Amino acid sequence: MRKIKAIHYGVGAMSHMIVPYMLEKGVDVVGAIGRVSNIGKDLGDVVGLGRDLGVKVSNNAEEVLSEQEADIVIITIASFVEQIYDQIKLCVENGKNVATICEEALSPWWTSPHLTSKIDKLAKDNGVTVTGTGYQDVFWANIISLLSGGCHHIDAINGLAMYNVDDYGPEVARSHGVGLTINEFNREEEKQEIPSFMIMCVESICSAIGWTIKELIQANEPTTSKMDLYAKSLDIEIPAGNATGRKEVVEAVTNTGVKFRVELAGKVYDPDEADINKWSILGLPNIELENIKPPTDVSTCASIVNRIPDIINAEPGYVTIENLPYLKYRPYPLHFYLK
Amino acid sequence: MRKIKAIHYGVGAMSHMIVPYMLEKGVDVVGAIGRVSNIGKDLGDVVGLGRDLGVKVSNNAEEVLSEQEADIVIITIASFVEQIYDQIKLCVENGKNVATICEEALSPWWTSPHLTSKIDKLAKDNGVTVTGTGYQDVFWANIISLLSGGCHHIDAINGLAMYNVDDYGPEVARSHGVGLTINEFNREEEKQEIPSFMIMCVESICSAIGWTIKELIQANEPTTSKMDLYAKSLDIEIPAGNATGRKEVVEAVTNTGVKFRVELAGKVYDPDEADINKWSILGLPNIELENIKPPTDVSTCASIVNRIPDIINAEPGYVTIENLPYLKYRPYPLHFYLK
Repeated sequence: MRKIKAIHYGVGAMSHMIVPYMLEKGVDVVGAIGRVSNIGKDLGDVVGLGRDLGVKVSNNAEEVLSEQEADIVIITIASFVEQIYDQIKLCVENGKNVATICEEALSPWWTSPHLTSKIDKLAKDNGVTVTGTGYQDVFWANIISLLSGGCHHIDAINGLAMYNVDDYGPEVARSHGVGLTINEFNREEEKQEIPSFMIMCVESICSAIGWTIKELIQANEPTTSKMDLYAKSLDIEIPAGNATGRKEVVEAVTNTGVKFRVELAGKVYDPDEADINKWSILGLPNIELENIKPPTDVSTCASIVNRIPDIINAEPGYVTIENLPYLKYRPYPLHFYLK
Repeated sequence: MRKIKAIHYGVGAMSHMIVPYMLEKGVDVVGAIGRVSNIGKDLGDVVGLGRDLGVKVSNNAEEVLSEQEADIVIITIASFVEQIYDQIKLCVENGKNVATICEEALSPWWTSPHLTSKIDKLAKDNGVTVTGTGYQDVFWANIISLLSGGCHHIDAINGLAMYNVDDYGPEVARSHGVGLTINEFNREEEKQEIPSFMIMCVESICSAIGWTIKELIQANEPTTSKMDLYAKSLDIEIPAGNATGRKEVVEAVTNTGVKFRVELAGKVYDPDEADINKWSILGLPNIELENIKPPTDVSTCASIVNRIPDIINAEPGYVTIENLPYLKYRPYPLHFYLK
């Protein structure tokens, strides 16, 4: 048995948790790729370990990925598959498995079918696995699929979730329109349709249960606050009334007529707000789920680390979470879980 | 593809839901075995279908199990493995898979190791699977294992659950001391150690995560009410101050030092009470789960029916739920899920 070797791609906010978590679970972090900041610095220094890891952050992805032997690359760069397609491709062509917290990557067949099938083919050709995971893996997808098992009949699934968009670095904040005036927000919305992260979760639940999505619509609106709020991710003051983020309502209907309605808000919080995760399955019986103050950011980082052995063990291709074993806590070093 | 054939063994309270659920999911119910009441009646009549099924309730288990071809037998007779060992043996020796809502059967290796290994061997010798399932499969075991996947580190797991002992027929109510005076309750407790259903759930969670139990203790006390309560399961009036059921506290420590503390009350309810399911995983991060008014009885029946294809598909032996695919809702006839 040898330790798992990982490369971290994208040394932003999330790497400050993911890198230490990997080290504590016996993973050798053997490479780090950045884009602009921290280039040349030691990764241990960058993620606040208080000690050097002997791994310099490089902006030469090609060099790191071709020269460094590794089992898996952890990509924490952006929220949409299109934004990380080139990076995934480079990893896969260099024979590396990929785990990413890119939210769309959780289940991107509905929103990015062409890119996903290209990645799937590339991954199969290179004998590696690509998987999107994170908090949603547990809290917005598998837990709903699991609870459904307590139902004899299901008519509808409703969800309400909220996360602090300020916890995930500037990329995520920007993609939520944080700080824009309402006019700017609406203009941005018109220019580009940003798919809700809940689309992927609905898709994952449907895939797990064996439903197909027949209709799906999404409506967006800006969230606002009555007070000025500071957004640490962008280091800006958001004037009262400007967009603090985005609320999305996703409604879908399955082939069997089951209705989904999931509301998701990603926003900079008022002082009294906390993350929300509340779901209802309506049918026989009704099942209600609530996670009180769910730890969205920490669980995102814990989840991707716990997922590492599943991804290395999986068949090659683009493998979505409902086709992996359910996520579980890993009390032992991660290489103990390799097949 | 042919429909699944099932025999129902124990035509009590739960069969009134399980039999219709099986029929609605395309299962042929081809036999019914009772012990005392309803013998000779049509099963459809007994479970309140309003139509005959052409299946008479028989008290000759041997005859039904040896002469009737069936894929699986659903046993809903009692809460402890010892009480249904002979019935399981008869099913298995007649080549039938077994699903049971017997609570101990969920994970009986800690509480009944000898009987369980005898069943395991019998099942392997006869090429069939024996599994315990029910509400706990989802709400007290797998959901905790799944949520653990969002943690980087776990120190402790605390649970609080309550169910209405009056929903499950006289066997369950009697085993909870319903109606006894406090002195009678305590004498019963001294005579026999009744293992808490939570022992099996802790065992299942530990097995799923890869922990072993190093210490386990259970403390019981009677639950009481300030008012007289009617127990429909036993058709008795419980005087105020007498036992309305039992509260159990199970404390366990794993090989890695993780501490479980799970409190479970099974009792006849005061008018304002409802089922409870609240869990906390303490660690990094903390994760809180609550199911508001969980539908314990209906989900027990839905779960065992949804489990049928998993059990038929499984390897022979005593297969506990953490070694099956996670339970999921079945939108299609159950034989569609057979391998």
